[in-house]
Amino acid sequence: MLEKLKEEVYAANQRLVASGLVVLTWGNASGFDPDSGLMVIKPSGVDYGSMTVDDMVVVDLDGNVVEGRLRPSSDTPTHLELYRCFEGVKGVVHTHSVEATAWAQAYQEIPCYGTTHADTFRGPVPLTRILTKEEVASAYELNTGRAIVERFRGLEPLATPGVLVAGHAPFTWGKSAADAVDHAIALEAIAKMARLTEEVSPITPAAELPAYVADKHYQRKHGRNAYYGQENGRV
Amino acid sequence: MLEKLKEEVYAANQRLVASGLVVLTWGNASGFDPDSGLMVIKPSGVDYGSMTVDDMVVVDLDGNVVEGRLRPSSDTPTHLELYRCFEGVKGVVHTHSVEATAWAQAYQEIPCYGTTHADTFRGPVPLTRILTKEEVASAYELNTGRAIVERFRGLEPLATPGVLVAGHAPFTWGKSAADAVDHAIALEAIAKMARLTEEVSPITPAAELPAYVADKHYQRKHGRNAYYGQENGRV
Amino acid sequence: MLEKLKEEVYAANQRLVASGLVVLTWGNASGFDPDSGLMVIKPSGVDYGSMTVDDMVVVDLDGNVVEGRLRPSSDTPTHLELYRCFEGVKGVVHTHSVEATAWAQAYQEIPCYGTTHADTFRGPVPLTRILTKEEVASAYELNTGRAIVERFRGLEPLATPGVLVAGHAPFTWGKSAADAVDHAIALEAIAKMARLTEEVSPITPAAELPAYVADKHYQRKHGRNAYYGQENGRV
Amino acid sequence: MLEKLKEEVYAANQRLVASGLVVLTWGNASGFDPDSGLMVIKPSGVDYGSMTVDDMVVVDLDGNVVEGRLRPSSDTPTHLELYRCFEGVKGVVHTHSVEATAWAQAYQEIPCYGTTHADTFRGPVPLTRILTKEEVASAYELNTGRAIVERFRGLEPLATPGVLVAGHAPFTWGKSAADAVDHAIALEAIAKMARLTEEVSPITPAAELPAYVADKHYQRKHGRNAYYGQENGRV
Repeated sequence: MLEKLKEEVYAANQRLVASGLVVLTWGNASGFDPDSGLMVIKPSGVDYGSMTVDDMVVVDLDGNVVEGRLRPSSDTPTHLELYRCFEGVKGVVHTHSVEATAWAQAYQEIPCYGTTHADTFRGPVPLTRILTKEEVASAYELNTGRAIVERFRGLEPLATPGVLVAGHAPFTWGKSAADAVDHAIALEAIAKMARLTEEVSPITPAAELPAYVADKHYQRKHGRNAYYGQENGRV
Repeated sequence: MLEKLKEEVYAANQRLVASGLVVLTWGNASGFDPDSGLMVIKPSGVDYGSMTVDDMVVVDLDGNVVEGRLRPSSDTPTHLELYRCFEGVKGVVHTHSVEATAWAQAYQEIPCYGTTHADTFRGPVPLTRILTKEEVASAYELNTGRAIVERFRGLEPLATPGVLVAGHAPFTWGKSAADAVDHAIALEAIAKMARLTEEVSPITPAAELPAYVADKHYQRKHGRNAYYGQENGRV
Repeated sequence: MLEKLKEEVYAANQRLVASGLVVLTWGNASGFDPDSGLMVIKPSGVDYGSMTVDDMVVVDLDGNVVEGRLRPSSDTPTHLELYRCFEGVKGVVHTHSVEATAWAQAYQEIPCYGTTHADTFRGPVPLTRILTKEEVASAYELNTGRAIVERFRGLEPLATPGVLVAGHAPFTWGKSAADAVDHAIALEAIAKMARLTEEVSPITPAAELPAYVADKHYQRKHGRNAYYGQENGRV
Repeated sequence: MLEKLKEEVYAANQRLVASGLVVLTWGNASGFDPDSGLMVIKPSGVDYGSMTVDDMVVVDLDGNVVEGRLRPSSDTPTHLELYRCFEGVKGVVHTHSVEATAWAQAYQEIPCYGTTHADTFRGPVPLTRILTKEEVASAYELNTGRAIVERFRGLEPLATPGVLVAGHAPFTWGKSAADAVDHAIALEAIAKMARLTEEVSPITPAAELPAYVADKHYQRKHGRNAYYGQENGRV
């Protein structure tokens, strides 16, 4: 069942470790199949070294385990909320990568300080509000997903493919599990560059990139007139 | 004698190097067998590359070498004091990992700035007091252990599985040597995240995580209602 | 066609990844053959893991693809402008390496704080001006090259083999593609050292290296009386 | 000739790269044979990847090449001055490792902030004065060695096995080439810990380690009553 998606999700999870974004069991990647409405996700708390493709868990959009010997990630309700609400998203990644987590812990959005940022994220990397005591007390992971969706009102999720959950850590997403991992790698690099930019800048706050440069870089890679890479059509 | 424990302790020591927490010979891991009252520990000053399982040293709770060709770690009296006083602890790790050591050298506890911290440590990572001249002059390593135990009055060691020894470096512990290594890895990540959080935060000091979020994260992984991982029972 | 140069350019691109300067597809290296007036460059947006020597693209100085199944890097017009204007340059590298990019994002040149800097760069690492809205709107990559050339009026490109493009990232160059990679590695190290120097210096700004020491180090490695390495003639 | 020493020196040079202290050709290690009065050192500007044991160069105390097809390191006169003046030193290492170099560039000695420092270095890591224009103009490398020796008047080189050359980078030494590499690794870690200690400390300057703790740690590893490791005699 969904064997190809399981392999993609397994590979995405392993790449989180290989990229240095995840230590111990601090992360998870999932993939979504819109045709069947099913999600494949990493099992909860399982060691990456001993994990196999067959350990991946298949869950429906209501959170019922459809296939798998193991429990799905405890963050499953957050992933599902994103698939339910974000049109076109087919991969979600959660890590506690150090640089992005620092911004989440400092309750700060990451400003767009350069073209590396603009190549992947339109505008600042958004920050959710902190959950209330009641939201934490029950359905905590679902409410985390809802807070992300709430923050994205008026934003295009695929143009800003990630978020900082306040006091917690980042989630990223994309058109596939692999795409979501790419965005997790990009976010960690952007978060570090932004911190270092503020450190070496003689002015406070550091200067943001002019919008016309940011737009240009985003458009080089995305949208109708993109000309980066091998697949985009030329004008 | 205690062959399985020796292998666990050997593997734990090697993982300290593989995880980047230890360079040269700057660290040691031990494991404890409550039934026999014996501890297995790394030999002192031996190179990790040439060390074998058979080099592990078996010591009783009074510090007598029961088996082993080599001298035990010079930090042996600290490890023993923790096993004597901390109920349920069966693994201890000592490193000079850079980020945690920086907090120890700055005489600062690590505040709980996010859920990564709360997943492993209840409350701030504690700091011992600095030893007196007399405590350093004789039985220095034993007195280091006593200062740790003194700092944990009123705390549950397995809920706060590590400490910063003032001016020195961290010790962590757990239900096994492997568990103590996990906590050393977690502590190093938490220490770095806390430093970066303070760096990017516009307010001083940075804001601590609301207690209700910290409690939730600790309870997700630990205790009666835990639902993270494969072994915890569901309500 | 230009098989040796293709292999050099392929190897240069792979070394960018191995050196940790490039993640994902964030970089490109090229080489130039002055006899034929042709440049070999990495294809656009292709994964380093699956890329082969035969994927390298051959382009003439006007930007026409002379050989290759794939599109050349979208930064091709920047590379070409440097080969057209910088006498003796036969290799160009572009990365988004974190430390150098931070200085570019902070709109700061990197001061010469030590002999490591002086060994490779004469004077500070230059910063371009930010492009105008019109320069970004059309021929963006060509205008990036022009802004670099404009900044180097009065400078000797081979004595200062790199630049920070404001709000963007570094370019480096040299007498070969391999040489340009060496300079990218050197620039990243210099950028990090400069940041840390400012961090630990008790005075603001930190003190620059006396010019007579900087000159000495540059002359040890370069020019008529160089005595570093195996190829330089002795006086 | 001196085949064993050549192998030690070769291995020491390779370990500098493996430990991340050296990129490109930015470093060199040497070993000294007091019986013959000969030094073995890395050749100048040779790539670590292609270098072999037979490339090591044998030099006498006056700097004459006694054996070897290649030129010795351009830093040879500095190494020789240390062997001539520092009794008991049989290995010298020079790197541009990032953290130690930052302190050298900031013209700051590294204060003793913790036991990691005290385990290897008695007192702060010393800083040389900056050379005069005349000292740079002729016999620059010899004068670098003389400035180090000058700074060590009243100090015991084997108890403080390293120095920061102002505006340049660190040298370390020891009882063998391997020992000097150990000290280069230790110095880099200490330099980073000291920077981070100042960063997280709420007071400026950060508090130094009490002298009685520093002395205790130094004595645990060194001198007559040392009890760390397998070779030290017990009282």
